[in-house]
Amino acid sequence: MEKRLNSIQLNNIKIEDEFWNRYTDLVTTKILSYQWDVLNDRVENAEPSHCIKNFEIAAGRARGDFYGFVFQDTDLAKWIEAAAYSLASHEDQKLMGTVDEAIELIADAQQPDGYINTYFTIKEPSGRFTNLSEGHELYTAGHMMEAAVAYYNVTGKDRFLKIMCKMADLLCETFYSEEYKHAIPGHQEVEIGLIKLYGATGTRKYLDLAKAFIDRRGHKPNHLEEERKKETWKDVFHNPDPFIPEYSQCDEPVRIQKTARGHAVRAVYMYAAMADLAYEYDDKELMTACERLYEDMVNRQMYITGGIGQSGIYERFTVDYDLPNDRNYSETCASIGLALFCRRMAQITHDSRYADTMEKALINTVIAGISMDGERFFYVNPLEVWPDNLLPYTSMSHVKPVRQRWFGCACCPPNIARTLASLGEYAVFTGDDSLWINMYMSEKFDVNIHDAHVVLSQKTGMPFKGKTSIEICSDKDVSFDLMLRIPDYIDDCSVRVVFDGREISLTMDKGYLKLPVRIDAGNDALEIELSFDIPARFIYANNNVRANAGKVAVTKGPIVYAMEETDNGSNLPAFAVDTNAGITEVWDNELFGGCMVLEVSGTRSENEDASKDCLYGIKPPREVPAKMRLVPYAYWNNRGEGEMLVWMRRK
Amino acid sequence: MEKRLNSIQLNNIKIEDEFWNRYTDLVTTKILSYQWDVLNDRVENAEPSHCIKNFEIAAGRARGDFYGFVFQDTDLAKWIEAAAYSLASHEDQKLMGTVDEAIELIADAQQPDGYINTYFTIKEPSGRFTNLSEGHELYTAGHMMEAAVAYYNVTGKDRFLKIMCKMADLLCETFYSEEYKHAIPGHQEVEIGLIKLYGATGTRKYLDLAKAFIDRRGHKPNHLEEERKKETWKDVFHNPDPFIPEYSQCDEPVRIQKTARGHAVRAVYMYAAMADLAYEYDDKELMTACERLYEDMVNRQMYITGGIGQSGIYERFTVDYDLPNDRNYSETCASIGLALFCRRMAQITHDSRYADTMEKALINTVIAGISMDGERFFYVNPLEVWPDNLLPYTSMSHVKPVRQRWFGCACCPPNIARTLASLGEYAVFTGDDSLWINMYMSEKFDVNIHDAHVVLSQKTGMPFKGKTSIEICSDKDVSFDLMLRIPDYIDDCSVRVVFDGREISLTMDKGYLKLPVRIDAGNDALEIELSFDIPARFIYANNNVRANAGKVAVTKGPIVYAMEETDNGSNLPAFAVDTNAGITEVWDNELFGGCMVLEVSGTRSENEDASKDCLYGIKPPREVPAKMRLVPYAYWNNRGEGEMLVWMRRK
Repeated sequence: MEKRLNSIQLNNIKIEDEFWNRYTDLVTTKILSYQWDVLNDRVENAEPSHCIKNFEIAAGRARGDFYGFVFQDTDLAKWIEAAAYSLASHEDQKLMGTVDEAIELIADAQQPDGYINTYFTIKEPSGRFTNLSEGHELYTAGHMMEAAVAYYNVTGKDRFLKIMCKMADLLCETFYSEEYKHAIPGHQEVEIGLIKLYGATGTRKYLDLAKAFIDRRGHKPNHLEEERKKETWKDVFHNPDPFIPEYSQCDEPVRIQKTARGHAVRAVYMYAAMADLAYEYDDKELMTACERLYEDMVNRQMYITGGIGQSGIYERFTVDYDLPNDRNYSETCASIGLALFCRRMAQITHDSRYADTMEKALINTVIAGISMDGERFFYVNPLEVWPDNLLPYTSMSHVKPVRQRWFGCACCPPNIARTLASLGEYAVFTGDDSLWINMYMSEKFDVNIHDAHVVLSQKTGMPFKGKTSIEICSDKDVSFDLMLRIPDYIDDCSVRVVFDGREISLTMDKGYLKLPVRIDAGNDALEIELSFDIPARFIYANNNVRANAGKVAVTKGPIVYAMEETDNGSNLPAFAVDTNAGITEVWDNELFGGCMVLEVSGTRSENEDASKDCLYGIKPPREVPAKMRLVPYAYWNNRGEGEMLVWMRRK
Repeated sequence: MEKRLNSIQLNNIKIEDEFWNRYTDLVTTKILSYQWDVLNDRVENAEPSHCIKNFEIAAGRARGDFYGFVFQDTDLAKWIEAAAYSLASHEDQKLMGTVDEAIELIADAQQPDGYINTYFTIKEPSGRFTNLSEGHELYTAGHMMEAAVAYYNVTGKDRFLKIMCKMADLLCETFYSEEYKHAIPGHQEVEIGLIKLYGATGTRKYLDLAKAFIDRRGHKPNHLEEERKKETWKDVFHNPDPFIPEYSQCDEPVRIQKTARGHAVRAVYMYAAMADLAYEYDDKELMTACERLYEDMVNRQMYITGGIGQSGIYERFTVDYDLPNDRNYSETCASIGLALFCRRMAQITHDSRYADTMEKALINTVIAGISMDGERFFYVNPLEVWPDNLLPYTSMSHVKPVRQRWFGCACCPPNIARTLASLGEYAVFTGDDSLWINMYMSEKFDVNIHDAHVVLSQKTGMPFKGKTSIEICSDKDVSFDLMLRIPDYIDDCSVRVVFDGREISLTMDKGYLKLPVRIDAGNDALEIELSFDIPARFIYANNNVRANAGKVAVTKGPIVYAMEETDNGSNLPAFAVDTNAGITEVWDNELFGGCMVLEVSGTRSENEDASKDCLYGIKPPREVPAKMRLVPYAYWNNRGEGEMLVWMRRK
């Protein structure tokens, strides 16, 4: 395998982008303080979190009972992780003080042997590691490890890191013991945490334990089945269904799995760890499994929005080409996990197609997960919504017509926060002699290449407008390859390099345009002008996707567009698009603080008899000419409740 | 209100029809003995019933524990009801002996105070009537009453009738007591049973109790909510959801309910009772409620197949125009209940539109519920099936790609049996001076009109072919109106009456063609030739039905047609119908023992690149000319597992 690329250190990048900062700024200006209030139960009308209170009780600072899901601790973990990333770009002593206090609280809640988990500490102290399929202890530990590493990387403070190493040491001791030699987590995530902990500390056993968890998975005896037969097993979720190995991707060894299956978040978190481990152990078989699962997911089970997990029940994958538009789950967290997996695959393979998918997931489903005011969130991301039929206690009750303030099970909001706050890690990669631009955004960053301190600034109109200019300067003479991702959605691209007269040979390598640049310390900055042709396009689904037969979607660049009731009136499925009539692009300066609106035309069907009071008849509907206005899918439901539709009927 | 019409006594009608006897004969030749074996746990590979065993334990004849659903007793009740109807047309001493033995078993299981219910007798003897929302005691009693009345009406034997009167007396005593003065059944059905018991015995208090149950419903205090607050309440179903008044149609008084709501079977069983009570008490307000609920159901919430209950979760109605084709529940029992309601409405109002709906439900969804070999059954009746995505533990797990042998919860199979065995009650009504033909089928029946014994025989090719001949003779001179239903699906109709030269004036009255006939005892039989023009038709849904936008269905007469994979290959949504190309009717003598097949043409889409291994692209699919073969929806899945589709895309 080639040498893996690294994400840029967040301390070294500053994003100042018209499109992205609309969301990323929310983390600093709103979400962190709002979510901190939620964790402390200070937000009215939001479901109680009790997260901090649980830690206080476990730490002996307060009395009371545990409240919340078994994985409630992860809300604090993800909040600290997001806070850490935010501190990388925005100095904030008060926030750092709050985090430090939270870390002391965690330290106090840690048991003498290193164990941390408020649910088991408070409610089931003798029940540790007895219900790995439902207990989420390892999942929770994984998120805590990620947070500890993030805070250490940004601030250099190792207090939290050491706390989590102590927990990781306990896990190593436990999960290599005879009793637990087949044990695996019920919800994958600790693997990512352990790998990151290894990255920060160099402690090899952490990496090895992550590998063991992956290698044990799907073999017999299946610990998650066996633990249920023991006297020590306690029912946590009161789920009437039997244990379903497929749900946790442990029905067969991961190396031979050919299809993405089971709970979508579990799946992609595992794939992300598998990619890391394949690289670390130079394990080509495991890498092949990653590629195969990626292909199945992206080419047969992924929504055009980068959403995954088609079933509302069990939030899971179903089968190839089953992509219903209205009843799907497509959890925000699953798209976050998909981006995590794809980022690793891009870094390991240097192949831009993974970055294409990563961008699709981030720019459509992940930011759809949060309202533009930063206060409301979607878990579930359907591609077609008719608010009237989203009734509680029906097959559609998991789909919400409007974003919610905060959920009892609050995985998505803090996950969105940590993802937005670490956007730079997705945008820019670095190699030994190379610099990789994956996502075009207006930004400035500096990196050291050999001895040289290189500063790159980018100004771009992407994703709506293709014009991008890059300036690079260096304090020393330096040569490196600038790798510019050529996204899969552009028609044409022109590059103009303002250079000192030297010949420059442009080549394409796995979707990246390679510019071998040499910068002399004394000279003016190297200037590169990129011009992408990003046409708005009609997109057709594979014919095997039954849900999209006869339908068409509209995209511009990575952005999927949708019709909303507020622009088009109700009954959106009544519209049919004439694809021959083309797509008109209209820049609207007011809408969403500046947005490219797309317009298409076609027909709208109406009852022949307008007041038709029966369901079925022999008269076909009347077709009247119509124009339709489309906005980015991610922006839907920022203007009140109403219908939304991505896949439109084709005339 | 006009005088209510009666259904013909089943002892007096013999159906010998090519279309219907294919199903009705199954009851006598197969289902009754098969189901008796199931009730006795003698069928391999079927889920255990334990129904008879429960009665034996409750009767003290056997030892053991109760097994099954709380309403397991209803399986025996519906079986006896079906057996009774079968005995009306097929003498069978052995069957009658079996029924009599079963009745003695029931008698032994009855408690000294009249109480009958094996679940509570065995498991919760002190818990009677403490959990009316889930316990199904009254529901079970209702089915037992219906069975008792059926057996009494056919055989004249009153042993079972008296048993159930004793139970009904206990109910009257209990449910007029102070403690239960607001009590209502959680699952409606006892109302129908009590009304029938009143019909058989004339005991007015039974009718009054049924009325009280209807009138109490939806008022505060809601007994079903209050009972949960008592110490005596025991959780039966372990449902994590709170009590949902709407689910049991008790969120508001039934008289002011404007929309069909909640669990579909509960709803239609209640509407059937409401119609009876509206008539018995000359209660116009209640009749108006029936009409309003009928309109909402049939004009805004019913599938073209007569299926109702759109949500897989809670088997319930959702909202107007929400008619998804693939994930719906549309329980077979709900369509049976719809037919029960419509039959009563037709008898009370003399309006044929109710018979139109009744026929639609029976001829499409109800017979779809049973395989042609009588051994397998559908609970759930979607209009679009793709077997690949019907996975367990997903949003689609309630939909089955093939009929099942017998269910743990076995409401549908015996319900189908009792419905088929009583088909005559739907086909022919009688008035004081009138005879009503509702459903055309080859049959012979005799009725007394005043003093005359009138015999009518009918030969018809319906529903596939419109030619129908009727002969009537009488042993005495008699005059009466022959009322012939003119279904809503015919284009034209010609009537030729071979008569003795007298003038005959034909008039239409609420969808019935009125023939005032006079028959002289000595003369030849009166002959009537009817010729219905029943064209195959394209049907369009109301434009508000989002799921059917751009789609078309095909019907012939009351029969809804469907594409099956076995005739058309896989990926049925890839087909698009050219409605201008018309519909070809082809009689196939071999298929299903004689069936009208319909052929339409249009296109079939294919991936531009046949092996296209990606989900989304800019090339539209290629359209190739195609012919499609359609068979009656009710017949689907009688030739192996495969896709099925009713609503086709329109080219």
